[in-house]
Amino acid sequence: MRRGRPGHDQDAVLAAAVRLFNERGYDATSMDDLARSLGITKSSIYHHVRGKQELLRMAVDHALDGLDDALAQVRGRAGASALDRLEMLIRLSVLVLAARLPYVTLLLRVRGNSEVETQALARRRDFDHEVTTLVKAAQQDGAIRPDVDPATAARLLFGMVNSLAEWYDPARGSAEQLAATVSALAFDGLSVRPSAPASVG
Amino acid sequence: MRRGRPGHDQDAVLAAAVRLFNERGYDATSMDDLARSLGITKSSIYHHVRGKQELLRMAVDHALDGLDDALAQVRGRAGASALDRLEMLIRLSVLVLAARLPYVTLLLRVRGNSEVETQALARRRDFDHEVTTLVKAAQQDGAIRPDVDPATAARLLFGMVNSLAEWYDPARGSAEQLAATVSALAFDGLSVRPSAPASVG
Repeated sequence: MRRGRPGHDQDAVLAAAVRLFNERGYDATSMDDLARSLGITKSSIYHHVRGKQELLRMAVDHALDGLDDALAQVRGRAGASALDRLEMLIRLSVLVLAARLPYVTLLLRVRGNSEVETQALARRRDFDHEVTTLVKAAQQDGAIRPDVDPATAARLLFGMVNSLAEWYDPARGSAEQLAATVSALAFDGLSVRPSAPASVG
Repeated sequence: MRRGRPGHDQDAVLAAAVRLFNERGYDATSMDDLARSLGITKSSIYHHVRGKQELLRMAVDHALDGLDDALAQVRGRAGASALDRLEMLIRLSVLVLAARLPYVTLLLRVRGNSEVETQALARRRDFDHEVTTLVKAAQQDGAIRPDVDPATAARLLFGMVNSLAEWYDPARGSAEQLAATVSALAFDGLSVRPSAPASVG
């Protein structure tokens, strides 16, 4: 969808918008700010996008599409156990966050203040629901400790994954390595002591 | 520090301010909004606090003081192993988050846009540094798997803990129960399969 001058195509406009939204907040960012940051006129931005809401929608969709692709890959692995599918989803989600970091950062700050935000929150809820369903299935298989609430486990797992948006730095190690660390912590725990799962109730 | 009319003392003003800051954002909240939400005049608010910055400072300090108290309790347990102290710190932090939820929520949104915010971020960094030091010590004791980077493990642990600010609902279970679940997931993992720690490198 390249239109207008090279280097100012839709992707570049979107990337600049996401950077400003994350730095200053969506409400505090104007289309004038965006034009200034790109060094182009406001009217040339409107060659690429309809407006600020449209930029927000494209940005959060880019994050959510990545997570939904991960879910689709996991669903495609019908032969795998629920535990293996959950583990795969955690790893793939870490890779999506690392690859689409500013987009996910923006998504995680959405609070439902517009239709675009409400729709994004609904898609996040659907995703969370699927994670909970996987935890439940793995628990029914006897592969996940029976003493944790599946919804709580799902939230804690993605609390860990989503925290990447706050601190991930590609210079400190590959995303694949980080995905392996998250998976190890989530499923085997940090401790090396041989222990039966302690009662949580 | 009760001054002025009952029910409008400093704590009530602070609680209302934190609610508005979390709902609308700090920048978008005016002292007029705060007066309106309390049903009092702006000048009566100034009997209790010097201004908006002061409210923000009090709010983030309330969150940080809770976390520092947890750290002080853990430091006081000199006889305990590093692993036990780390586990205790995770549990106590969950309890602090549950008890001071709106204050911690506000703290976690601070981005360093003023001196108050910069100081809060510095206190957060000191706290994170102490967590990393505990992880390292537990690793040197052979109690934590050697194949994870201590700083990464500390961030993931507190990614999980801090996520409570997004979803914790006291109606769904006690804070003590949740603290036990977080600790179980962090140290023993979700999986029940007996497994040697997989290599992460």
